[in-house]
Amino acid sequence: MRDLRIGIIGVGVMGADHAERVVRRISGARLVAVSDPDLPRATTLAESLGSSSAPAAGTGDGDAIRVIEDPLALIGNAEVDAVIIASPGFAHAEQLMACLEHGKPVLCEKPLTMDTESSLRVVEAEHKLGRQLIQVGFMRRFDPEYAALKQLLDSGELGRTLLLHNVHRNKTVPESFRSEMIVRDSLVHEVDVARWLFDDEIARITVRAPKPTGLVADGVLDPQLAVFEMASGAIADVEVFVNFQVGYEVRCEAVAEKGSATIGLGVDVLTRRAGHWGGAVPDDYRARFGTAYDIEVQRWVDATARGEIDGPTAWDGYAAAAVCTAGVQSLQEGRPVEVEMARRSEVLG
Amino acid sequence: MRDLRIGIIGVGVMGADHAERVVRRISGARLVAVSDPDLPRATTLAESLGSSSAPAAGTGDGDAIRVIEDPLALIGNAEVDAVIIASPGFAHAEQLMACLEHGKPVLCEKPLTMDTESSLRVVEAEHKLGRQLIQVGFMRRFDPEYAALKQLLDSGELGRTLLLHNVHRNKTVPESFRSEMIVRDSLVHEVDVARWLFDDEIARITVRAPKPTGLVADGVLDPQLAVFEMASGAIADVEVFVNFQVGYEVRCEAVAEKGSATIGLGVDVLTRRAGHWGGAVPDDYRARFGTAYDIEVQRWVDATARGEIDGPTAWDGYAAAAVCTAGVQSLQEGRPVEVEMARRSEVLG
Amino acid sequence: MRDLRIGIIGVGVMGADHAERVVRRISGARLVAVSDPDLPRATTLAESLGSSSAPAAGTGDGDAIRVIEDPLALIGNAEVDAVIIASPGFAHAEQLMACLEHGKPVLCEKPLTMDTESSLRVVEAEHKLGRQLIQVGFMRRFDPEYAALKQLLDSGELGRTLLLHNVHRNKTVPESFRSEMIVRDSLVHEVDVARWLFDDEIARITVRAPKPTGLVADGVLDPQLAVFEMASGAIADVEVFVNFQVGYEVRCEAVAEKGSATIGLGVDVLTRRAGHWGGAVPDDYRARFGTAYDIEVQRWVDATARGEIDGPTAWDGYAAAAVCTAGVQSLQEGRPVEVEMARRSEVLG
Amino acid sequence: MRDLRIGIIGVGVMGADHAERVVRRISGARLVAVSDPDLPRATTLAESLGSSSAPAAGTGDGDAIRVIEDPLALIGNAEVDAVIIASPGFAHAEQLMACLEHGKPVLCEKPLTMDTESSLRVVEAEHKLGRQLIQVGFMRRFDPEYAALKQLLDSGELGRTLLLHNVHRNKTVPESFRSEMIVRDSLVHEVDVARWLFDDEIARITVRAPKPTGLVADGVLDPQLAVFEMASGAIADVEVFVNFQVGYEVRCEAVAEKGSATIGLGVDVLTRRAGHWGGAVPDDYRARFGTAYDIEVQRWVDATARGEIDGPTAWDGYAAAAVCTAGVQSLQEGRPVEVEMARRSEVLG
Repeated sequence: MRDLRIGIIGVGVMGADHAERVVRRISGARLVAVSDPDLPRATTLAESLGSSSAPAAGTGDGDAIRVIEDPLALIGNAEVDAVIIASPGFAHAEQLMACLEHGKPVLCEKPLTMDTESSLRVVEAEHKLGRQLIQVGFMRRFDPEYAALKQLLDSGELGRTLLLHNVHRNKTVPESFRSEMIVRDSLVHEVDVARWLFDDEIARITVRAPKPTGLVADGVLDPQLAVFEMASGAIADVEVFVNFQVGYEVRCEAVAEKGSATIGLGVDVLTRRAGHWGGAVPDDYRARFGTAYDIEVQRWVDATARGEIDGPTAWDGYAAAAVCTAGVQSLQEGRPVEVEMARRSEVLG
Repeated sequence: MRDLRIGIIGVGVMGADHAERVVRRISGARLVAVSDPDLPRATTLAESLGSSSAPAAGTGDGDAIRVIEDPLALIGNAEVDAVIIASPGFAHAEQLMACLEHGKPVLCEKPLTMDTESSLRVVEAEHKLGRQLIQVGFMRRFDPEYAALKQLLDSGELGRTLLLHNVHRNKTVPESFRSEMIVRDSLVHEVDVARWLFDDEIARITVRAPKPTGLVADGVLDPQLAVFEMASGAIADVEVFVNFQVGYEVRCEAVAEKGSATIGLGVDVLTRRAGHWGGAVPDDYRARFGTAYDIEVQRWVDATARGEIDGPTAWDGYAAAAVCTAGVQSLQEGRPVEVEMARRSEVLG
Repeated sequence: MRDLRIGIIGVGVMGADHAERVVRRISGARLVAVSDPDLPRATTLAESLGSSSAPAAGTGDGDAIRVIEDPLALIGNAEVDAVIIASPGFAHAEQLMACLEHGKPVLCEKPLTMDTESSLRVVEAEHKLGRQLIQVGFMRRFDPEYAALKQLLDSGELGRTLLLHNVHRNKTVPESFRSEMIVRDSLVHEVDVARWLFDDEIARITVRAPKPTGLVADGVLDPQLAVFEMASGAIADVEVFVNFQVGYEVRCEAVAEKGSATIGLGVDVLTRRAGHWGGAVPDDYRARFGTAYDIEVQRWVDATARGEIDGPTAWDGYAAAAVCTAGVQSLQEGRPVEVEMARRSEVLG
Repeated sequence: MRDLRIGIIGVGVMGADHAERVVRRISGARLVAVSDPDLPRATTLAESLGSSSAPAAGTGDGDAIRVIEDPLALIGNAEVDAVIIASPGFAHAEQLMACLEHGKPVLCEKPLTMDTESSLRVVEAEHKLGRQLIQVGFMRRFDPEYAALKQLLDSGELGRTLLLHNVHRNKTVPESFRSEMIVRDSLVHEVDVARWLFDDEIARITVRAPKPTGLVADGVLDPQLAVFEMASGAIADVEVFVNFQVGYEVRCEAVAEKGSATIGLGVDVLTRRAGHWGGAVPDDYRARFGTAYDIEVQRWVDATARGEIDGPTAWDGYAAAAVCTAGVQSLQEGRPVEVEMARRSEVLG
C-alpha cells in the first residue's frame, strides 16, 4: 500500500515535533511538504529531515520535502494527501475550510478555532460535505494511561463515575500567555478529558483564581481552579497552573461508586478498591520491555544502514556464555566458581 | 535512502514479535523473508503481515514476504540485506557462521551460542573477517530505564558503584524449562547487565538455590540466587525466579558511594541521595506525552488510509470552544456560567 | 508531679478510644470518671480499664474508675481535674458552659456546638472568664504528617501557598448520616485544616454535590465537593465522600509558588520541587524505629509485670552470636562458613 | 497495680533514649536509677528527667532518679525491680550474670555478649535458674511493619517463604566502627530477622565485601553482602552499608511461592500477588490517625498541667461552625455563600 503523503502547516515546536514523528517514527506515511511564515525555519527543517543520514522510510527514496510558503497552496497541492495543522489558533478556521474544500483529511492541533461561532461554522461545513475529514488534536485520548483509565471506567468495575480531579501543570510559559489562554489553550485539554471520560457534555463551568503566584506577569491569573458540572450531574475539577516552576505534570483521578483510579503518577493506573491500593504487574515482558525491543531493532537498523554495530557484540555474547557455564557449575556443586575466559586482547588483538 | 531488507529466522513468540515490529513500528526497514521449520506458521505470518489492511510502510508497495524453508538459504538470499536470528539457541552457531560467510549483518537473540567454546569460535571467525557483523540481543541496554541508570552511574554523581541488586521474575515458564536454562536463558540477561553497568568482566560466580517453590516440576531449582564478583571487586546479586506466579518483574538497584538508584518500579529512576528519595519531574510534555503523540499520529495515518476518523471530531472541537468561552466569562465575572451550545442533533442531523 | 485526673463524658466509639488512650498510652494523666446515658456501657468500660491485668499507670494504685451518670455532676466532681467531652454534638453547649463555670479545662470533640450562635456564646463566656479552658478536637493539627506539612509551608521554602486540594473519604457511615452531617461532621475537619494551614479565615464557601453514589440512602448527597475562598484570596477544595466503600483515606496537597507537597500517601510529605518529586530519608534510626522501641519497652514492661518474657530470649542472643562469629570468619576467609551452635535441646532440655 | 521500677545501665545515645522513653512515653513503669561510667552525663540525665516540668507519670510523685555509679550495685539495689542494659557489649556478660543472680528481669541491648561461648554460658546460667529473665533488644520484631510482614508470611497466604532480601544502611558511623563490628553490631539485626521470620536456624553464612566505598577509613570493609542459608534450605541475603551517606534505610523483601512482600518503603507492607502490587487502605481512622489522637491528648494533658491551651481554641470551633452553616446553605441553594462571622477583635478584644 502506498504511503500517505503528509503536509504540515506551522513548524514551531509542535509542528517540528510532528514532522520528525512522521519521518522517523510513523510507518505508512511520509512528509512531502511544510509551510511556515518563517521561511528559513521551514527550509532548515525540510533539509535536515529530507537529507537525514539515518535511513528514513517516511521520506521515500530520495524524495525531498518541499517548502510551500502559502499554507492554502500546501493544502491544495496535488501531492499532499493529508494535512497536519500546527499553526497558531487564529489561522485554523481558514485552513480547516480549505481542507474541507479540497477534501483533504486534516489533523488539527487544538483549539479547533478561537471562538464558538467559527467552530460551529466548521462543524456545519464538514457536515454539509457529508464526509468527516477533521480530527482535533486532543491527544490525551491516545495516552496509554488515559486510555486504560477510560477502559477501566467504562468496564463498570468501579460502578458509576462520580467525580474527576485533574491537575495540569507546566513548568513555565512565555510572558505572552494571558489568563484567557490558560482557559483556551491549557484547560481545553481537560474540557475534552471530562467530556470523553464521562461521555457527556459540560452544562455549567466555574473558573476561579486564587491570588496569583508572584512568579508571573502582573495581571495574569495563574493558577486557576475550574469546576465542570456535567449534564448528567457528575462533577470535575481542574487545577491549571502554567508557571508551576517544578516541571510538567498532568494527573487525573476518577472517583467512582466503588473505588478510585489515578493516572499520571508514572505507574499506569493506580486504583483504590475494596481495601486495597495499587497497580497491575504485567503478565509478560511485552508490557515491560516492548519499547526497549522497538528501540533495539530501530537502532540496529539505523546502525546497519551505516555499516556499524551499535549494541552488544559477539564478544559480549561469548563472555555471557562463559559466565553462565561457570554459573551452572556453581549451582551443581554448591560453591563459588571462577569464570574461565580467553583474554580479550589475545582474541581480538 | 533505500529501506533495509530484513529476513527473520524463527517465528515463534519472539520472532513473530520482531516481524510485526519491523513491519509496523520501525522506519527504514522492511521484512522480505521469514524462515521456520513450522512452515504453516511461517506462511500464516507472512500472509498476515504482507497483506495487512493497515498501511504498512515496511512491506514496500505491494511486495509480499517470502517464506524460505532453509534458514541458510534465507541468509544467502540476495534480496536479504540483514538477518534477525530468533531460532532456538542450538541453531545459532551454524546460522551465525553463515551470516559471517555471506557478510550479512545479524541481530542474534541471546544466547550467542549454547556453550563457551562455540561462542569463542564465532568471535574468532568474525574477528578474522575484519568486520563486525554480529549484534547480540541483550535488549536491557535499550530499555530507557536501564539506559538512564547507566547514564547516571557513568556520570559519577553518585560516586563509584559498589553493588547491584537484581530481581528477574517471570510469571511462569513451560515445564521443559530446567535448572540450567534458568542460568543460560534468564540469568544471562543480568550477566550482561552487570558487565555493561560496571564495564567490567565477571571473575567469579556463585549460584545457589533455596529449597524450591512447590509450584514447579520436580527437580527444577527455582528460584535461584546468583552472586557475581567483578574483576574490579564490585559485587552483584541476582534473584531469578521463573515461576513467580504474580507476573513479570525486573528490577535493578545500584548502590554507589553517595547514593543508590533503582529501576523497574515504573517511575523511571528512583534515587536515594543526600537525605532524599525520589525521581524527576520532566520539563515539558515531550517526556510525559511523547508516546501519546506518536500513537495519535499513527492512528490518524492508519484511519485516514481507510478513509475514516478515529479520534476527536470537529464537534468535539466545537464543544470545547463553547465550554472555554463560558469558562473565560466565569473567570472574569467570578460566578458559575451555563455553557451555551447548539444541540448536536440539530447540527448533525 | 501529680497526675492529671480526667473525666470523660460519652463513651461511644470515640470516648472509649480516649479512655483507653488515657489509661494505657498517655503519661501524666489518669482516668477517674466516665459518664454515659448508656449506664451498662459506662460500667463495663470502667471495670475493664480499672481492673486491667496489664499494669496501668494511669489508673493509680488500685484506684477504680467511677461511673457518674449525670455529665454535669462529673464536671462538678472535685476529683475531676479536667474533662474530655465525647458526647453527641447537641449536648456540647451545656457541658462546655458547665466546664467554664467550674473552671475545668476541657478537650471537646468537634463540633464545638451545633450552630454558629451557640458557638459564639461559648466563645464569649470563655472570654468573659478571662482564662482559656476549651480546646476543640481538631486532631489533624497533631498528625505528624499535617504538622510536617504546616512546618514546610510556614518555612517559605515553597513560596506562598496558593491552593489546597483535600480528599476526605470514609468506608461507610450509618444510614442516619444525612447530607448536612457530611458538612458539619466530616467537612468540618478540612474547614479547620484550611484555616490552620493558611492562618486565615474562610470568606466564601461553595458546596456542590454530583449525582450521588447509588450506595447511599435516598436523598443523601454523597460525595460532595466544597470550595473555600480564603479572606486573603487563596483557595481550597475538598472532596468529602463518606460512603467510599474502599476504606478510610485522607489526603491534602498544598500547591505553592515553587512546588507542591502532599500528605496522606503513607510516605510523610511527598514534595515536588525544582524538577524532582520525592521525600526525605531520615538521618537515623529514631525516625524509622522510634515507635518500634516504644512498643518493645512497653511490651517488656507489661510482660515483666506478669513475670513473663514476651520477646527475643537469651537463646536468640546466643544463636545470633554464633552466626556473627561464623560471618566474621567468612568475611576474613572469603568463603562460606558453617555455623557452629550447641543443639537447643541439649542446652535447654 | 504498682509501677515497675526500672534501672538503666549506660546512658549513651541508646540508654538516654530508653530513659526518656520510660519517663515520658511508657505507662506502668518509672525510672528510679541510672548508671554510667561518665558520672556527669548520668547526673545531668537524672536531673533533667527527674525534675521535668512536664508532668511525668513514670517518675512518681516527686521521686528523684538516683545515680548509682557501680552498675552491679544498681542491679542489686532493692528499689530496682528490672534492668535495662545499654552499656557497651563487652560489659554485658558480667551484668547479665548479676541480673540472673539477683533474679532481676533484664532487657539487654544487642549483642547478648561479644562471643559465642560467653553467650552460651549466659543461656546455661539462666536455664539452671529455671526462670527466664533475659530479653535481648532485637527490636525489629516490635516494628509494626516487621510484625505485619511476619503475620502475613505465617498466614500462609503467599505459600512457603523462599528468599529474603534485606538492606540495612546507616548514614555514617564513627571511624572506630571496624569491619567486624559491621557484622556483630549491624548485621546481627538481620541475623535475628531471618531466624525469626523463617522460625529456623542459620546453617551456613557467607559474608563478602566489594571493593569498599572511598568514604570510609582505610581497611574497613563497607558495604558487605551476607548470604544466610537456613537449616530448612531457605536463603536470605543482606546488604549492610554503614556509611551510605544518604541516611538511614532498612528494608526487607520476602519472596514466597505465590508472591512477595516488602517493608521499609514507608507504606507498611507492599505486596505483589496475582497480577497486582499494592498495599492496604485502612478501614477507619484509627489506623490512619491513632498516633495523632495520642499526641493530641498527650499535649493537651501536658499543656493543661501548665495551665495552658496548646491546640485549637473555642474561637476555632466557632469559626468552623460559621463556615459549615454557610456550607450547608450553599449545598441547599447550589451557589457560593459568603461566610458570616463576628469579627475576632470585637469578640475577644
